[in-house]
Amino acid sequence: MLHKIINLTVRDVRFPTSVEQHGSDAMHTDPDYSAAYVVLDTDRGLRGFGLTFTLGKGTEIVVCAVEALAALVVGKSLQEIVSDFRGFYRLLTSDGQMRWLGPEKGVTHLATAAVLNAVWDLWARSEGKPLWKLLVDMVSHRKFRSKVCVQDVITISCSVCVSSGSRDQMQKEGYPAYTTSCAWLGYPDQQLKQLCTDALKSGWTKFKVKVGADLEDDIRRCRLIRQMIGPNNTLMIDANQRWDVAEAISWVSRLSEFKPLWIEEPTSPDDILGHAAISKALAPLGIGVATGEQCHNRVMFKQFLQASALQFVQIDSCRLGSVNENLAVLLMAHKFQVPVCPHAGGVGLCELVQHLILFDYICVSASLDSRMCEYVDHLHKHFTSPVVIQDAHYMPPKDPGYSCEMLEASVQKHQYPEGDVWKLHMNK
Amino acid sequence: MLHKIINLTVRDVRFPTSVEQHGSDAMHTDPDYSAAYVVLDTDRGLRGFGLTFTLGKGTEIVVCAVEALAALVVGKSLQEIVSDFRGFYRLLTSDGQMRWLGPEKGVTHLATAAVLNAVWDLWARSEGKPLWKLLVDMVSHRKFRSKVCVQDVITISCSVCVSSGSRDQMQKEGYPAYTTSCAWLGYPDQQLKQLCTDALKSGWTKFKVKVGADLEDDIRRCRLIRQMIGPNNTLMIDANQRWDVAEAISWVSRLSEFKPLWIEEPTSPDDILGHAAISKALAPLGIGVATGEQCHNRVMFKQFLQASALQFVQIDSCRLGSVNENLAVLLMAHKFQVPVCPHAGGVGLCELVQHLILFDYICVSASLDSRMCEYVDHLHKHFTSPVVIQDAHYMPPKDPGYSCEMLEASVQKHQYPEGDVWKLHMNK
Repeated sequence: MLHKIINLTVRDVRFPTSVEQHGSDAMHTDPDYSAAYVVLDTDRGLRGFGLTFTLGKGTEIVVCAVEALAALVVGKSLQEIVSDFRGFYRLLTSDGQMRWLGPEKGVTHLATAAVLNAVWDLWARSEGKPLWKLLVDMVSHRKFRSKVCVQDVITISCSVCVSSGSRDQMQKEGYPAYTTSCAWLGYPDQQLKQLCTDALKSGWTKFKVKVGADLEDDIRRCRLIRQMIGPNNTLMIDANQRWDVAEAISWVSRLSEFKPLWIEEPTSPDDILGHAAISKALAPLGIGVATGEQCHNRVMFKQFLQASALQFVQIDSCRLGSVNENLAVLLMAHKFQVPVCPHAGGVGLCELVQHLILFDYICVSASLDSRMCEYVDHLHKHFTSPVVIQDAHYMPPKDPGYSCEMLEASVQKHQYPEGDVWKLHMNK
Repeated sequence: MLHKIINLTVRDVRFPTSVEQHGSDAMHTDPDYSAAYVVLDTDRGLRGFGLTFTLGKGTEIVVCAVEALAALVVGKSLQEIVSDFRGFYRLLTSDGQMRWLGPEKGVTHLATAAVLNAVWDLWARSEGKPLWKLLVDMVSHRKFRSKVCVQDVITISCSVCVSSGSRDQMQKEGYPAYTTSCAWLGYPDQQLKQLCTDALKSGWTKFKVKVGADLEDDIRRCRLIRQMIGPNNTLMIDANQRWDVAEAISWVSRLSEFKPLWIEEPTSPDDILGHAAISKALAPLGIGVATGEQCHNRVMFKQFLQASALQFVQIDSCRLGSVNENLAVLLMAHKFQVPVCPHAGGVGLCELVQHLILFDYICVSASLDSRMCEYVDHLHKHFTSPVVIQDAHYMPPKDPGYSCEMLEASVQKHQYPEGDVWKLHMNK
């Protein structure tokens, strides 16, 4: 715990995923999955690794924001940080001059997430535990409330307790996942079919389909997927904010025959009351509203919960202020009895968020009812401790830390614009 | 209109206002009023000037974001932009890769505001009109709906019309202002008294006091100001987001004896339903809730209006996506019959927002009931067309453009970190 942070480096790492339309949806037609990647060096040699996820262009802005935060981190010891983590969180998010740029939203909050993810990684490594276990043990030893910043304005009344049975169950069976890898918007039907066939063979039972660009296309694609997976498997649809409120209701109603469990991001992520109207209109069809990957902080999640504007909370490990803020949202979701189904994919999001959802199951929700964690099958090979999926379940990570250390060779190769991958790409 | 934009430059300009505690409040204790300052060059020599306001540290992040947007602007003609301004707005705010960093919030939206403010300045200059008159004439000639992006999800049903009487009235009397210059949180009582005495002599009748750091201090300061201005002048109080919901209600209740017209920013700018609860609790005391300077886009304003969470809409010329988005908010406020009282001060905010509130009066609200525009008396000397205040009213600007061109000597002197002011400051 006495490790003193003596240096912070941040790099712009981009993967040219747009070339093959991986990750394409109705609003993000050509994403290059990227990250502002942070490494903390300490005086004793231990290092912490963190990142925030981006879509390519503009990653340099987040890098610039991380550099602006660096002075608040370098020189502090881990002990100093975690003994008043609430204060440290506020130092990063409420600097008298910087907070004007947010507060707690957009670029500066993404940068905060990258830095804090690295601090949590460092902490877990210093304890020799995977992050989920660090959290679980903190609850067991009742260190939770004093150590973690849960600075929400709602009084969290839920009782947090550890069930050793649920921990053993996770270690044996893992946490259920669903796949988004089969049905990106830019994939042709033949590719959809092939990926779906492969996924069914590998044990997947829950599938998400991107929709929202063209209704007739969506009907054809949803019909195709529903036919392939049969009536008993689960289908979700995701519009990535493409519609206004009335459009969302009519469009999803047209897709209701395919029995989707939820419609994800039907409209603007800031339109809380719009989401409430959509939730109300779709409830009779048995379709819930899921959102969160662009819900920019815990206060916004509070609005969504208070307004009954969502039926599935999709936390994001890099949009919110790291573990600190995600814990607040997990507790609020529990209070409102709304299941948490994390957003993942991108680069590193699966690696990170698996820790949070394991903690949610073991210490907060103790339920798998209507719960699952997103999974997307690419870019894992660039991590030193990639996720382990068995039979469509996330298996609890064993390595110490928060699982987002990248292979140095991958970082160098994909660094923008000087890495080999980008030099090659630009010369094409 | 054929002016082609051939270059965009952006500079980090900071004024060391923290030294004398100008602008200090409960959350921003040491602001250095700053700007990301944009200049557009065209092939015909005409230039456009725009800025977004910041508080010092982190301005370089906004500069970085403006640079990322530059490629979307340079090469376009003014004609091309304004003939599909909605499309251009979306190009800046919804780029498939960049929008992940917002969307339409935080650093990237501040950068969008700086760029679009410069485009509007260029447009108004190309027509040889101050911006407010460009807008008024667009309405007169019914060019409004086709030219301006009002991409809101609410159907704007209000009828927009120009009253020539109200235009003449503005040119004669100006738009009523209130002053925030007397009572920054960091000022000692003696300074408060002196500034208040001076302001009363200059004809000011509406005064805003910063509160929220210490209740006993606030009681003393509000009592002092109310005694000085008497029962018939107007007092407003501003907590700059310092409280949670319950705290806001009890704190403001304690200050109700001083009859404030509004409490500004009582809590987190994202806590819409919290503001609604505060509004409801304070209504019996005759105190309204005002907010907006950190309300990050039109969709958020829609939430506040739909939830009856504010009684005064405080638009900001640099937080929202320039004139385009501010017009949407003016129209929504009109629909909900809530008065607009713009946020100003900082650097350049008075210069910019006066155009919008003049337009609001002449073309939208046609009322001065419960309406006034903030004024803060510093840094105006750095502009080529500074605001003109007469008898506590903003006099309509006459020079072509959007009034935010800075004197080149001021820019060079205050450029961060290389300007003389900062070299001197750092050597102290």
